[in-house]
Amino acid sequence: MKILLVGAGGVGAAFASIAARRDFFEQIVIADYDASRAEKAAAQDERYVGAQVDASSQESVAALVREHGITHVMNAVDPVFNMSIFNGAFEAGADYLDMAMSLSKPHPEAPYEKTGVKLGDEQFAVASDWESAGRLALVGIGVEPGLSDVFARYAADHLFSEIDELGTRDGANLTVTDEAGNEIFAPSFSMWTTIEECLNPPVIWQDGEWHTTAPFSEPEVFDFPEGIGPVECVNVEHEEVLLMPRWVDCKRATFKYGLGDEFINILKVLNTLGLDRTEKVRVKGVEVSPRDVVAAVLPDPATVGPRMKGKTCAGLWVTGTGKDGEPRSTYLYHVVDNEQTMAEYGHQCVVWQTAINPVVALELLSRGTWSGAGVLGPEAFDAVPFLDLLTEYGSPWGQKELD
Amino acid sequence: MKILLVGAGGVGAAFASIAARRDFFEQIVIADYDASRAEKAAAQDERYVGAQVDASSQESVAALVREHGITHVMNAVDPVFNMSIFNGAFEAGADYLDMAMSLSKPHPEAPYEKTGVKLGDEQFAVASDWESAGRLALVGIGVEPGLSDVFARYAADHLFSEIDELGTRDGANLTVTDEAGNEIFAPSFSMWTTIEECLNPPVIWQDGEWHTTAPFSEPEVFDFPEGIGPVECVNVEHEEVLLMPRWVDCKRATFKYGLGDEFINILKVLNTLGLDRTEKVRVKGVEVSPRDVVAAVLPDPATVGPRMKGKTCAGLWVTGTGKDGEPRSTYLYHVVDNEQTMAEYGHQCVVWQTAINPVVALELLSRGTWSGAGVLGPEAFDAVPFLDLLTEYGSPWGQKELD
Repeated sequence: MKILLVGAGGVGAAFASIAARRDFFEQIVIADYDASRAEKAAAQDERYVGAQVDASSQESVAALVREHGITHVMNAVDPVFNMSIFNGAFEAGADYLDMAMSLSKPHPEAPYEKTGVKLGDEQFAVASDWESAGRLALVGIGVEPGLSDVFARYAADHLFSEIDELGTRDGANLTVTDEAGNEIFAPSFSMWTTIEECLNPPVIWQDGEWHTTAPFSEPEVFDFPEGIGPVECVNVEHEEVLLMPRWVDCKRATFKYGLGDEFINILKVLNTLGLDRTEKVRVKGVEVSPRDVVAAVLPDPATVGPRMKGKTCAGLWVTGTGKDGEPRSTYLYHVVDNEQTMAEYGHQCVVWQTAINPVVALELLSRGTWSGAGVLGPEAFDAVPFLDLLTEYGSPWGQKELD
Repeated sequence: MKILLVGAGGVGAAFASIAARRDFFEQIVIADYDASRAEKAAAQDERYVGAQVDASSQESVAALVREHGITHVMNAVDPVFNMSIFNGAFEAGADYLDMAMSLSKPHPEAPYEKTGVKLGDEQFAVASDWESAGRLALVGIGVEPGLSDVFARYAADHLFSEIDELGTRDGANLTVTDEAGNEIFAPSFSMWTTIEECLNPPVIWQDGEWHTTAPFSEPEVFDFPEGIGPVECVNVEHEEVLLMPRWVDCKRATFKYGLGDEFINILKVLNTLGLDRTEKVRVKGVEVSPRDVVAAVLPDPATVGPRMKGKTCAGLWVTGTGKDGEPRSTYLYHVVDNEQTMAEYGHQCVVWQTAINPVVALELLSRGTWSGAGVLGPEAFDAVPFLDLLTEYGSPWGQKELD
């Protein structure tokens, strides 16, 4: 297995550190638009080599695949570049993995009622091409989507006879301080992606079809495990809602994110001002995308780890009828403590938690435990070997019955 | 009188439209970084000519003064360019007017207690050079500072024997709608300047010295006249506080701005994220100032007039002892209705209200009614001819006794 890792940012660098401890691959070519960032991530392992790539160019990606005889392209950049990397991998005959799907476009007339172009639509549209070519695109294999989707498959196979709702619930108690010890605003994940998912109309699967609602709708306090406690969660557009119903029977699928009041207010203000926009504006002789500027002024999520404290939890709340015919409500989850990932890997917990899942998936693909062709989500594969290997990596998952 | 107007934005264009109705000058050279914007403003009057200028370059300003034999430089750009225009005028031997003074720098250790570099310090530092050269720099001659300072002089000369507080109070009931008629966020004045004045530590004159407080401090509901009604006002850094005590005896001088909750929240979020910063950041290969980007994504204040409704009020609340020895509390004010300025001049009320005052001042200077040398504020001159001429322009002021 020869892997091309596109992107050496927060998640990409954590992927490289986690994979460095495993022996299932021959080589990883770490490519970034900023070659020095790629070289830095590549310096830690003899099987790594750094390269420069333009992720917006299908040709640039395909050329690297051909040059290095790549078998698997691992996409670890903002999803705005998904299609060029996805198509570049296909063009050059490699398999493909990403952690977020191709972007949505709101319905032109009823954005908060009906779906327009859905997350992943562009990728699923060419699924038959991938299938006939015998190539695999494993989409959405981070932590959310990713591990949450593995939990959905596990719940359907081993815990429930009938599922009412597959409700992904994400919450944390992370705080970041500045050099002087004062708490500051510093997103733990790509601000570009956070704006994208939080301000787009949230999508919900209900009774056999998808519909949308208004941003930040249906607030709900969810009590997260392992000391995180209650966090207010709101509907957010997320891939799980588009992936899970394709492979797992359920009446309803939702994604709620524990954003908190301050973050919701910030996102609303960015939206009010138009600073969430991606189209470039002219500013004193140069052209920039306002959203890129917002991301640029904030601390780089890849660098805040040493000043971050707390735990993050990704999980799936499943309700329905258990295998015993009784009503059941179960939360399947994965909690990561920033102190631990910083000490053991030197990466902050949110990017580390995202990055570990594609490493596990690639190891299962290299063993042949997981195999397939087409455009497939994580729930298209057997969950048990994934969850076992995740535990073997030293990062166990949990299960909690709710009232 | 030959005037160089630097800046053909909202205020500059309104200045040109107001001056076009008066006959006290021979020529106005309208200069802007964007030559087409200057040409557009210059097209309305035969005495106008358009030109290109780099307001950040003292040489560029001085060259235009020399080329056209300019007697008065009228600065109508963001105050970040004040010193190059101020110095360019002096170098080339012209008098100078602006509507905001040179910028402040917070105290390095106690920004919310002590003043650092104050508004106008850089200009007052060279006052003796202007005085010896017999040249006049009339600083802060917009509406606030400007008309508010004229009110201070008027109150001292004609209404009060002793002044406790000179409290500038600014409020409005303006709303802006989009093409579909939905209310939108659109500042009625330069967003760059609004961020500067609202996020800097507010300055207060008290018992013979200046000190600072925290942004948005000492909220107070002030009841504005002519149907605007009560608006919550907070302390904001403003030139009046630095100007009035230099020429008018008072125990206290303050400036409070009726920002409203939504605007305060937006400013706080911009500050939290660092989007108020002026230092350039690198964004995907280009360098931009985040604050310039914020200004660029918002509707241009010069263009929102047709979709704006309501009135704006600038004024000075004076408390102390009246000429009769009795306690007195008087609000001197100037209210402008957007509907009227749009219909009569095609400019929205906030920029129009700012622009009319330097036109009046220049007319008084051309008549010799006002004269002087050095760096002087509006309160250094007799208020009565100014207020009379303002009324003659068709824009009367008001006076209201408060309880």
